[in-house]
Amino acid sequence: MDFSSKLLENAVNEVSRLPGIGKRTALRLVLYLLRQPAEHTQYLSEALLHFRNDVKTCENCHNISDTTLCEICNNSKRNPEIVCVVEDIRDVMAIESTAQFNGVYHVLGGKISPIEGIGPQKLQIDSLVEKVEKGVVKEIIFALSSTMEGDTTNFYIFKQIEKYKLITSTIARGISVGDELEYADEVTLGRSIVNRIPFEQSIKS
Amino acid sequence: MDFSSKLLENAVNEVSRLPGIGKRTALRLVLYLLRQPAEHTQYLSEALLHFRNDVKTCENCHNISDTTLCEICNNSKRNPEIVCVVEDIRDVMAIESTAQFNGVYHVLGGKISPIEGIGPQKLQIDSLVEKVEKGVVKEIIFALSSTMEGDTTNFYIFKQIEKYKLITSTIARGISVGDELEYADEVTLGRSIVNRIPFEQSIKS
Repeated sequence: MDFSSKLLENAVNEVSRLPGIGKRTALRLVLYLLRQPAEHTQYLSEALLHFRNDVKTCENCHNISDTTLCEICNNSKRNPEIVCVVEDIRDVMAIESTAQFNGVYHVLGGKISPIEGIGPQKLQIDSLVEKVEKGVVKEIIFALSSTMEGDTTNFYIFKQIEKYKLITSTIARGISVGDELEYADEVTLGRSIVNRIPFEQSIKS
Repeated sequence: MDFSSKLLENAVNEVSRLPGIGKRTALRLVLYLLRQPAEHTQYLSEALLHFRNDVKTCENCHNISDTTLCEICNNSKRNPEIVCVVEDIRDVMAIESTAQFNGVYHVLGGKISPIEGIGPQKLQIDSLVEKVEKGVVKEIIFALSSTMEGDTTNFYIFKQIEKYKLITSTIARGISVGDELEYADEVTLGRSIVNRIPFEQSIKS
């Protein structure tokens, strides 16, 4: 691209370093900012800087938080005996938005992936095992994505906490609510038959 | 979305005000910044602020520039007698990257669009007519997009400068280089037949 302005070029270069944003999209976004009041860019820049510099990680569950202990861990109405293990803070947000879970979370920060060079020591697994050792946790729900890496991570953690005789479960896999059977993949459909649930239970939820 | 952090929520809200970026994409981008060194966010914010606050518009052609007169208008090797009229600075970049044009530009800042409430007075049309009145310009190339608004704008400008007897032209419309005829739309194909060029000329360029 031939830029007539170094300031423009610099802004486009920085924006296009973001994932999934190419030079053309970056140019479009930056020129949009130019047509908006200067305050818009001011607020955007400040919001990003404040977030990046001041956001914390909850020291208990490793969720993103503005305080050393996150709102969920700090909430006395939540049951700290039930821990839902997730990869990412986006999973916490997804589960929270269902309003179906009253326990707490443990955010691993990823899943074991030898290909990407992510070993167990790079994830928050030790801190989870420590929590279990302390005896607070009674039940663990594995809510990792249903991939080879997710299953490996589940199994690795399960092996480490097996001796503590906790209740462990994984979230149910099955046909999405509202989906047509014929379009479901066979693995999901197969699992949803094997793990079928009593009819009385299904009409309650 | 249930945010566990106000700082995160604020950053996501600001990013998602950009066109074509929804909340989910904004969240992905912001969390990406969190995984990168803090300098990345620092550079990004500074680049946007510097751009927004310090960038200028060339007082001659209205192209984006770091100086009061842009690099193109300032370049003594460019011919100021040939003016290429474009909508947007992106069009300047596109034409510059072809390295086929040695004149200067005039950036209108949009095209006449009654539906969007953009009348001629909102565009840099008067300043173009003034330039023509001063007698510097000998040739005008209309390089607006081939839409009803583009054609209207071309015609509006043409009517205003008609009496000065300049050489006027519009960029050629036709089949893209490398394109199959059978997939071309009929208007484009029709125009490319009507405006056919001598074969000797076609093999030179």
